[in-house]
Amino acid sequence: MTERNIHVQPASGLAVEDQDIEVVERKGIGHPDSICDGIAETVSRALAQTYIDRFGTVLHYNTDETQLVAGTAAPAYGGGEVLEPIYILVVGRATKKFDGERIPAESIALRAARDYLDEQFPHLDLGSDVIVDVQFGEGSGDLQTVFGEEATVPMANDTSYGVGHAPLTETEQIVRNTEQKLTGEYAESNPVVGQDVKVMGKREGDHIDVTVAVAMVDEHVPDLETYKSAVSDVQAFVTDLAEEYTDRDVTVHVNTADDYDAESIYLTTTGTSAEQGDDGSVGRGNRANGLITPNRPMSMEATSGKNPVNHIGKIYNLLSTAIAQSVANEVDGIRQVQMRLLSQIGSPIDEPHVADATVVTEDGVAVGDVEADIQATIDDELADVTDITRQVIEGNLSTF
Amino acid sequence: MTERNIHVQPASGLAVEDQDIEVVERKGIGHPDSICDGIAETVSRALAQTYIDRFGTVLHYNTDETQLVAGTAAPAYGGGEVLEPIYILVVGRATKKFDGERIPAESIALRAARDYLDEQFPHLDLGSDVIVDVQFGEGSGDLQTVFGEEATVPMANDTSYGVGHAPLTETEQIVRNTEQKLTGEYAESNPVVGQDVKVMGKREGDHIDVTVAVAMVDEHVPDLETYKSAVSDVQAFVTDLAEEYTDRDVTVHVNTADDYDAESIYLTTTGTSAEQGDDGSVGRGNRANGLITPNRPMSMEATSGKNPVNHIGKIYNLLSTAIAQSVANEVDGIRQVQMRLLSQIGSPIDEPHVADATVVTEDGVAVGDVEADIQATIDDELADVTDITRQVIEGNLSTF
Amino acid sequence: MTERNIHVQPASGLAVEDQDIEVVERKGIGHPDSICDGIAETVSRALAQTYIDRFGTVLHYNTDETQLVAGTAAPAYGGGEVLEPIYILVVGRATKKFDGERIPAESIALRAARDYLDEQFPHLDLGSDVIVDVQFGEGSGDLQTVFGEEATVPMANDTSYGVGHAPLTETEQIVRNTEQKLTGEYAESNPVVGQDVKVMGKREGDHIDVTVAVAMVDEHVPDLETYKSAVSDVQAFVTDLAEEYTDRDVTVHVNTADDYDAESIYLTTTGTSAEQGDDGSVGRGNRANGLITPNRPMSMEATSGKNPVNHIGKIYNLLSTAIAQSVANEVDGIRQVQMRLLSQIGSPIDEPHVADATVVTEDGVAVGDVEADIQATIDDELADVTDITRQVIEGNLSTF
Amino acid sequence: MTERNIHVQPASGLAVEDQDIEVVERKGIGHPDSICDGIAETVSRALAQTYIDRFGTVLHYNTDETQLVAGTAAPAYGGGEVLEPIYILVVGRATKKFDGERIPAESIALRAARDYLDEQFPHLDLGSDVIVDVQFGEGSGDLQTVFGEEATVPMANDTSYGVGHAPLTETEQIVRNTEQKLTGEYAESNPVVGQDVKVMGKREGDHIDVTVAVAMVDEHVPDLETYKSAVSDVQAFVTDLAEEYTDRDVTVHVNTADDYDAESIYLTTTGTSAEQGDDGSVGRGNRANGLITPNRPMSMEATSGKNPVNHIGKIYNLLSTAIAQSVANEVDGIRQVQMRLLSQIGSPIDEPHVADATVVTEDGVAVGDVEADIQATIDDELADVTDITRQVIEGNLSTF
Repeated sequence: MTERNIHVQPASGLAVEDQDIEVVERKGIGHPDSICDGIAETVSRALAQTYIDRFGTVLHYNTDETQLVAGTAAPAYGGGEVLEPIYILVVGRATKKFDGERIPAESIALRAARDYLDEQFPHLDLGSDVIVDVQFGEGSGDLQTVFGEEATVPMANDTSYGVGHAPLTETEQIVRNTEQKLTGEYAESNPVVGQDVKVMGKREGDHIDVTVAVAMVDEHVPDLETYKSAVSDVQAFVTDLAEEYTDRDVTVHVNTADDYDAESIYLTTTGTSAEQGDDGSVGRGNRANGLITPNRPMSMEATSGKNPVNHIGKIYNLLSTAIAQSVANEVDGIRQVQMRLLSQIGSPIDEPHVADATVVTEDGVAVGDVEADIQATIDDELADVTDITRQVIEGNLSTF
Repeated sequence: MTERNIHVQPASGLAVEDQDIEVVERKGIGHPDSICDGIAETVSRALAQTYIDRFGTVLHYNTDETQLVAGTAAPAYGGGEVLEPIYILVVGRATKKFDGERIPAESIALRAARDYLDEQFPHLDLGSDVIVDVQFGEGSGDLQTVFGEEATVPMANDTSYGVGHAPLTETEQIVRNTEQKLTGEYAESNPVVGQDVKVMGKREGDHIDVTVAVAMVDEHVPDLETYKSAVSDVQAFVTDLAEEYTDRDVTVHVNTADDYDAESIYLTTTGTSAEQGDDGSVGRGNRANGLITPNRPMSMEATSGKNPVNHIGKIYNLLSTAIAQSVANEVDGIRQVQMRLLSQIGSPIDEPHVADATVVTEDGVAVGDVEADIQATIDDELADVTDITRQVIEGNLSTF
Repeated sequence: MTERNIHVQPASGLAVEDQDIEVVERKGIGHPDSICDGIAETVSRALAQTYIDRFGTVLHYNTDETQLVAGTAAPAYGGGEVLEPIYILVVGRATKKFDGERIPAESIALRAARDYLDEQFPHLDLGSDVIVDVQFGEGSGDLQTVFGEEATVPMANDTSYGVGHAPLTETEQIVRNTEQKLTGEYAESNPVVGQDVKVMGKREGDHIDVTVAVAMVDEHVPDLETYKSAVSDVQAFVTDLAEEYTDRDVTVHVNTADDYDAESIYLTTTGTSAEQGDDGSVGRGNRANGLITPNRPMSMEATSGKNPVNHIGKIYNLLSTAIAQSVANEVDGIRQVQMRLLSQIGSPIDEPHVADATVVTEDGVAVGDVEADIQATIDDELADVTDITRQVIEGNLSTF
Repeated sequence: MTERNIHVQPASGLAVEDQDIEVVERKGIGHPDSICDGIAETVSRALAQTYIDRFGTVLHYNTDETQLVAGTAAPAYGGGEVLEPIYILVVGRATKKFDGERIPAESIALRAARDYLDEQFPHLDLGSDVIVDVQFGEGSGDLQTVFGEEATVPMANDTSYGVGHAPLTETEQIVRNTEQKLTGEYAESNPVVGQDVKVMGKREGDHIDVTVAVAMVDEHVPDLETYKSAVSDVQAFVTDLAEEYTDRDVTVHVNTADDYDAESIYLTTTGTSAEQGDDGSVGRGNRANGLITPNRPMSMEATSGKNPVNHIGKIYNLLSTAIAQSVANEVDGIRQVQMRLLSQIGSPIDEPHVADATVVTEDGVAVGDVEADIQATIDDELADVTDITRQVIEGNLSTF
């Protein structure tokens, strides 16, 4: 076993759950920034899998720069139309030649991006509503083998850091679940709800305001009355949902920018604002844990699309979150744990320069009581660092 | 009846059929230039039809500038792959707003282009092998109504001309039919034959050389022997076909650039050379009659994609050919007729500045004997000029 | 005077300066992300100024989505060359027609972007090294007049927030000044130093590590020895510079990824890694205060390129920083102030939902002692909110 | 000396000069199609020269596919502005790596294209009016050395043909010189005349109509009166010019589509219609001899941008014209000579399959009298075929 540089310390301030004001945001999978994140990460997985299938190892690539240029649309009651297609430029680097064999990196990326859109966006017509373009530069060489018998732990090639925390506060849980359930099960049985759902939670003391913006799909909205009732259905659903996560007082606001008198409402043809005026790009929205949490330390790293074998920023952000979750789950008496991993250029990534846990314990528990358990948990997770890579490639870890 | 300026005159030289050397070429529908022609014309038809459906009339547009940037491919026995997708940029102008209503010109173009590729190119995988991009500027205003009760004949808005001839020489018939049957019925039952078929016919006296370049589809070519037999099958098919059109001596050459020893053969993954290295654009290949005929007068006009209501160059090229065919069919004793129509800016297009028929008659027939019949035929066709527009929109007239 | 909702409260934890570990980063103006930020903001200013010049008011636009696709280069001792140009796509929305007059938004953007590159990047040859493309959708309508006699304070059109802090810690000051002076005065007299300078500061207790990556310009590097001495010159310069800001122990590392034996060094032809393999986009790098500070609350907002009249996220991030600075400067006894502004949809932007100052005071000073002064300072700054807009348009406030 | 297959035969019809109707057209250097031709050929020359400078030989490339997408402009008396830049996509293939050295083909193309626009279009502002984009695929390998001591004649790699004729008819001379002098010396002293000048000559018997469309430059047109006088100045200049080339009756028409009452005139900001609505691409305009001549055999070959070392279509079109000119100049008694060269795959290009001269002699001269002289002239020119390549690379032969 390595001697890892693991620090555990008490937080100097209050747990976020106990602070006066808390703000949490999540951009849904249909938000233009998230569309880019989703494509970037899907393309990344498709490339990684292709390299593994063909060469038994992941080669150099990086696809974290998708840009979306909004289209133009004319939504209308009963069904409008997209006037000018959304343009999506998938940018990246990939190894196109290895061991004398050529790899169709761009064709793979094109297919992966189109398939992703096809699966995730039932109201988007791939034949007419979106142009997917690809520009890949040349990457080169192989990465270390992180799977199988010859597996080794890669070296950090950059000074970078990752942050993560656990458990989620009530507001965080409400915000995340609101988006995931609305665009998931709810949209499935209520196709009027599009994929572009933006949720902002704001807690002041014991009152939580949940503000939801939902792109309604015009095909399922014959008139204003139907729209209004779709809005109030969402309102009711989110209100119920919020109560599962908190006993605090919750107010839910849906599509607050609507003006019914002017019939200015949030109607779309495709279920995303990318159809009209809202551009997007990778890494501008949710952090690796799926949330934007200004009360917490955050990393600027655009995680989606990065190579999960050697991109230390991606790995450490995902790993910090995973570690924090393990600590919160496995160690008793933890009210909040905030992890930070700092890389050391040239050292194996399972030996970070610093692994730093800042802990708020429950009443009656001293940090000293749980320090050893926390250290052990962190140590285990670090030892298993390449599991993060595996999970990313298999699509089990979301990056946005 | 108008008094049209119609001239009929004897040709000063020999009919092409009687000249010593004749060269004829046809680029098949899968040639990169023809792909662009086909997309441009399909997009044109889709726009025209949309305008008619929505407004009862065709609005201003022009879509005659598609550019294809070749991809990269790695064909291989039994099936290779496209490495970098073909990029197709559909360029044009269209009316995007009329009578307070917005028209999804770009979305229509995108769908039309993709549908065309999907139907015509069975070996092209639209999800991974091709990127279709669209850039449309704004056109404006309406055109004259050429259909229905209020129909009028448009005015010529440019000084332009069209040329056409009939009947086709034996060599011309062989060249045209070779391509059409190879990429049509033959390819259907022999999927090894791709859509990129280029035919050159060269007649010296009574010997005709037919040189055919056929993009073979690698999925159906497990090895060199299969390739060789596919080549000799095509050779036999074209030899038989040629004999239907001529009693002259015919030699058929297929894929002459192949080098079997070096295993350098014409193998493709998608059935078109656009997959690797051959770019294309509209108007660089076949003329409006489907052929390139250096022994004949030709127009430089890029017919495909032009607006068939008011683009005088497009209309006159198609009409000249239609007139020549009528004359050849309906008037006895015609060995060759060469039509030329010259527009007069500001005059109705059924009243060309000059309509000029140059005729070679059969032995024993004087031009004077048939002049009146020819003039009457030309006059009838000119009177029915808007029928060309209708046929183009309905897809009954090929433009390349 | 309005009754603004201003809160002042003691911080629950330590000032960052007093925490054990502090990490600070700054991407220099030549980093691909910063190039995008710089172009986006320059284009924004040019549009705003054009609208003011032509219509006396700023119209709707948003240009916060520039994407950079890296080129390919072959740097070499004494001067290499760019093989494939950098591609920059400037994306946005702008009002192109107002009051019957058309506005050349795309031409203005193109010129602004090219001029910016020309001025900031002396080693970039605009004629051959970079392609600047522009794709602007249509924005529409006018914004409220925020200047002149009819000026009013705009309404918040979104729920958003901004954060800022003051004063900078020693490490923050060192990081920011290192980049600014290296790419500024130092590069002017030492053209070997390119514009792509990335600085990471890491403080553990009383030791500060400053890691600097400097893109050296090959034209000024005839051989490895020259390179080495350029590196050590930078090392000396930064070491001296750091001592101006701290009495702590400082270690400066320059281009640590170099491998002299393999002659693998950080050499560029243009002074930026955008020439080879490093893509970039807006909003992924420095926050509005020019730094990335994981120890502090941060906003994900991409500030650069946003409309400074009505984009509440941009305004509140810049304003939070300005307020924090005023408080730190004008109120005695402040060790650290952290500002947060939260908008209220539909309310004037000078009346935020919450204006929240979290304060660490100096020893012997109670927050209660300075609360009134702090509130008054905040109130003054909020009342003058449109001054932020003005300063942004005049180019006096940096956004990255 | 080789035994070349050279045929000389009498034409079966009249010389074009003696036919009843003749139509001739030339698109000026500022026509969107010609802009593309010019860029394609300039880029070709720059690449050829680079390869020669670096490797002593020309490598594989082909740059014959530039596409221009028109901009949007608002011309106005005294000076208008470009609203949306012209977009030019330079497409091609080039050898990017040879002998272990990388060649900056795309950067060279970008610079060449921009420099060409800068030199040829004084009213085009390169910083704001035009976007030049480049997409080059990979070519490979070297071509045969056609210069220097080891020079050999390349083999034809395709079945292709070229056509040329001499001397020019009066109408042809008038059309060509009208454009060249208007955009040359005349525009220099009359900057009101833009580079987009289109000339159509139509001769019926002994009357020649010259129709000229001149893009006037708005900066030099303060009002309608100035415009009118600019038009009549051009009219007078062309009338004088025409008289140098013919004794026939000439009528000159300038900007006939103008409607002064509606103030609908041909005004531009940049001197080319590419600024508004007119797209362009390579090979759609003038043939290799600078003219479009429907009375003559023509080749569809897009000559501009093709590799002058081995592209047989380019070489044979230029060579046919050169041969025809030599025959017309050096052999007495020639009224018209029409050349055709047909390649033979696998044979040296100085040994065409057929070299075919169709001749109209002057009264009193039999073809038999001059046949030997003509054959000798053709033979000499063929022997010197690589001189065409040299002249193209040095920029002494125009291709459009």
